[in-house]
Amino acid sequence: MISELSILDCFQHLVDKKTDKLLVVGSGDDAAVIKAQDKDLVHSVDISKINTHFPKDSSPEDIAYRSIAVALSDLAAMGAYPSFISIGLTSNSSDLDWYKKFTSGVEKILNEYEIQLVGGDVTNGEVSVCVNVFGYAYEKNILRSTAEIGDLIFITGPLGEGRQGLSDWNKKEKSEYVKKFFKPVIQFKKSKYISKYASSCIDISDGLIKDLGSICKKSGVGAEIIFEKVPITNDINDLSYGDDYKLCYTCSPKNIDNKFIIQDHLIGKITSKKGIILIKENLVFDFKKNGWDSFA
Amino acid sequence: MISELSILDCFQHLVDKKTDKLLVVGSGDDAAVIKAQDKDLVHSVDISKINTHFPKDSSPEDIAYRSIAVALSDLAAMGAYPSFISIGLTSNSSDLDWYKKFTSGVEKILNEYEIQLVGGDVTNGEVSVCVNVFGYAYEKNILRSTAEIGDLIFITGPLGEGRQGLSDWNKKEKSEYVKKFFKPVIQFKKSKYISKYASSCIDISDGLIKDLGSICKKSGVGAEIIFEKVPITNDINDLSYGDDYKLCYTCSPKNIDNKFIIQDHLIGKITSKKGIILIKENLVFDFKKNGWDSFA
Repeated sequence: MISELSILDCFQHLVDKKTDKLLVVGSGDDAAVIKAQDKDLVHSVDISKINTHFPKDSSPEDIAYRSIAVALSDLAAMGAYPSFISIGLTSNSSDLDWYKKFTSGVEKILNEYEIQLVGGDVTNGEVSVCVNVFGYAYEKNILRSTAEIGDLIFITGPLGEGRQGLSDWNKKEKSEYVKKFFKPVIQFKKSKYISKYASSCIDISDGLIKDLGSICKKSGVGAEIIFEKVPITNDINDLSYGDDYKLCYTCSPKNIDNKFIIQDHLIGKITSKKGIILIKENLVFDFKKNGWDSFA
Repeated sequence: MISELSILDCFQHLVDKKTDKLLVVGSGDDAAVIKAQDKDLVHSVDISKINTHFPKDSSPEDIAYRSIAVALSDLAAMGAYPSFISIGLTSNSSDLDWYKKFTSGVEKILNEYEIQLVGGDVTNGEVSVCVNVFGYAYEKNILRSTAEIGDLIFITGPLGEGRQGLSDWNKKEKSEYVKKFFKPVIQFKKSKYISKYASSCIDISDGLIKDLGSICKKSGVGAEIIFEKVPITNDINDLSYGDDYKLCYTCSPKNIDNKFIIQDHLIGKITSKKGIILIKENLVFDFKKNGWDSFA
């Protein structure tokens, strides 16, 4: 049995890093003390669990990286940049090497997004990572509840890559998609840019239909999507599968910037009729009436 | 199978409460947005897990209350008052009533300490609660690393009550101690007062010897304790058992206030000799040499 202290020691060098920039008190005390900022704090919690959110045979590096990445995606969806994180790690590994590898996955993503680990807790049990992310708005927070009728709907990249990656991993096939599943690129660059213009935004973690559905529900509006305009990897089920972490945002036609038109995918528009309508080969499909399964 | 949404709905009324005081954006979006404060943020993470941190047959109310209480204790130990929390809940209950009861435990402690729930996540698995606590210093943060030679050592209440409570619970005996185990009173009132005077502080979650040992290690000092001065519930093992959540603090003799002398228990002093010495019936026991087990 390895001690909690020896596990926490694996993380120590990460918490000690960059202390003077952000941390008043770092790890090793009862709590971390984070320097006051003259900005509202954006905060989200995300749990990633073995067998549910990542496959059983995932490497500890990948578990760490992916758990943190998908938690950070909520900040990008809010038009916020990340500043620091804390981690509640549950693991039943009795191999200190497992924790060292987990830590190197943490370090990799901390360096990539220039963020700081400020603290955490470790306990024994089936592998589960509770990631707490903290950041601040680039310009303004982009909510789910502020889409307006007539707004155009964009997504920032193709759907279904994560789905394909997980499928390849399960078949032990090596492909570019496996990396996209374990190390999704979180859309902060897009988020920074669109936070100036977008009327609403969400990250596609549960599938386009469900996530755009959340924007519609919260905004009291509906949406029409042109299927042929949605960049997919395999088939129509890519629209109802998550794990992509692209952004779906709406924007008033009068705010549309050329950069959006060049980079992102215009897939539909916000309407007054509640629910989501998918138009495919000029056939109109109403999700509210028929549900997804009868269509796909 | 109940949906994540129906579980989150149980918590909604808590997140919606007091929104205008603290929250710019509440639950239901990708993240919470918390109003900027002109104060450093004190933050800690604490995981409470079934079978490890609370017994298997604990009620959902008690699980919620205790998980949050013990997490808050880290703020008290830092000389900080609590402001808000977020929760990462893992549960395999398929009974919506379980979540409603859990929520009422959350609500009870939120009301008692006047704090706000700002967000969280729910996933399926063995019951585990990752509680994130946030607060601000009353006066100044009291660290573990700043005890000085010659300081006096105080504790804010008796030890062993939690231990007795858990033992009574396991024997299905009803006693006042059972409540002390499941609903420990977190020492914020004491924390507020001593934060003006104390040189170092820790909460007694892992046992007096271990926790005072942490102060000594971080401060590069040692300690002498007079066993007869330590208020205990049963026997000497109360000094090495946790679950009490009283504070252990040190204070320079020149700062000692009458209020400490009346309310708290002076149990020893900080010395230059590394390690902890326990003096019992004038016998001197050196932990560093002999370890706890050979003594108790």
